[in-house]
Amino acid sequence: MNLILLFVHDYIAADTVRIHDRRLQHVAHVLRSAVGDELIVGLLNGPIGRGTITRLTADDLEMTVVLERHAPAPLPLTLILALPRPKMLRRVLFSAASMGVKKLYLINAARVEKSFWKSPLLRVERLQEQLVLGMEQAGDTRMPEIFLRPLFKPFVEDELPGISKGTLALVAHPAAEQPCPREVNRQITLAIGPEGGFIPYEIAKLASTGFIAVSIGSRPLRVETVVPVLLSRLC
Amino acid sequence: MNLILLFVHDYIAADTVRIHDRRLQHVAHVLRSAVGDELIVGLLNGPIGRGTITRLTADDLEMTVVLERHAPAPLPLTLILALPRPKMLRRVLFSAASMGVKKLYLINAARVEKSFWKSPLLRVERLQEQLVLGMEQAGDTRMPEIFLRPLFKPFVEDELPGISKGTLALVAHPAAEQPCPREVNRQITLAIGPEGGFIPYEIAKLASTGFIAVSIGSRPLRVETVVPVLLSRLC
Repeated sequence: MNLILLFVHDYIAADTVRIHDRRLQHVAHVLRSAVGDELIVGLLNGPIGRGTITRLTADDLEMTVVLERHAPAPLPLTLILALPRPKMLRRVLFSAASMGVKKLYLINAARVEKSFWKSPLLRVERLQEQLVLGMEQAGDTRMPEIFLRPLFKPFVEDELPGISKGTLALVAHPAAEQPCPREVNRQITLAIGPEGGFIPYEIAKLASTGFIAVSIGSRPLRVETVVPVLLSRLC
Repeated sequence: MNLILLFVHDYIAADTVRIHDRRLQHVAHVLRSAVGDELIVGLLNGPIGRGTITRLTADDLEMTVVLERHAPAPLPLTLILALPRPKMLRRVLFSAASMGVKKLYLINAARVEKSFWKSPLLRVERLQEQLVLGMEQAGDTRMPEIFLRPLFKPFVEDELPGISKGTLALVAHPAAEQPCPREVNRQITLAIGPEGGFIPYEIAKLASTGFIAVSIGSRPLRVETVVPVLLSRLC
């Protein structure tokens, strides 16, 4: 936790917050902070600054807060991800949020196991939990938007053209001839398939929506590796 | 498992292997293969090819093997990594091996918790287990070398100059002015610190050995994210 994320409801006065959940536990037991210490804090979807601890008990942490700078720049990339297995999804959400992804679609694909869609991890509050952990890691305050799209065809036909419009639209596809570009310096829409990849029908559907299939070489990587690899390469 | 890794002791004839461990379980219960099916196989530190299943029982899998092509190219990068917490170490070994790292030093640093060095995961066979999983993921056969160096100063003074000689030597350091270069097209030695980073003394020691401190921006990332991010950016 490199930033304590604050919410509007934490404020008890114009410049004072009081918190008493896992953030208190973290400050007390991991950081082992004391009254007078300064912590990096940030307001959800707002600016970042310093909090000075004015009170710290087993039940309450109070800080005087000065917010003075912007959150780090978002990554100019929308991620379209075939729903990974729940254990991996947690790690992917964390790393994508920590790298600054602000819009993420979890979609269906032929090789996504149907049971994954029943995971309790897909409840909004559980998804947001992972995203918040990633934001706290990276010192970010802007909450990513996340959307579940359990039907591939209507998503690609009806919604994806609007999402990818005006962006460089790429689909990671190990069999593609074209190598994935580097440091493209423009808005990107990036689609990443499930374990085993998108099937040819899905690649063709994505291609018909303007997506270019690109490869990062002959090594098949796990989705939790390939997400940071591609984001790092493209942005 | 995108490749079944074979060992010399699996051979029962010049072109025939017999296996009966977790690889058999994987072929029988995950891939659900049958006699006559072809699998991608590779000999440890040797070539890659196809295995045709000639016998599959609860106890034995026999294949006729034809090895005909090279393993994928190794990554031209030696990784020097401050020992991460055991849970993270497993994932980092997996992803580094899957990306083609062939030489990896786990070193001490001021912010490495002493208890990490006592983890049972540091036994050679447990380390190799993770590396093999990464190789199987990536369809690779070349076993990475891994070295434990629990003393920072003698490692950096006595051994590191020989390791980094003739390479581009970089240390990831969030506070560095210089951005991390991209696609450098030469041999690299890359040092990555613990959570919280190397301390100034350690950065100075590394700099005196010719390491250039480079940054990938203002977002602190977890080591399991930063390893694929840096490898992808540099190679």
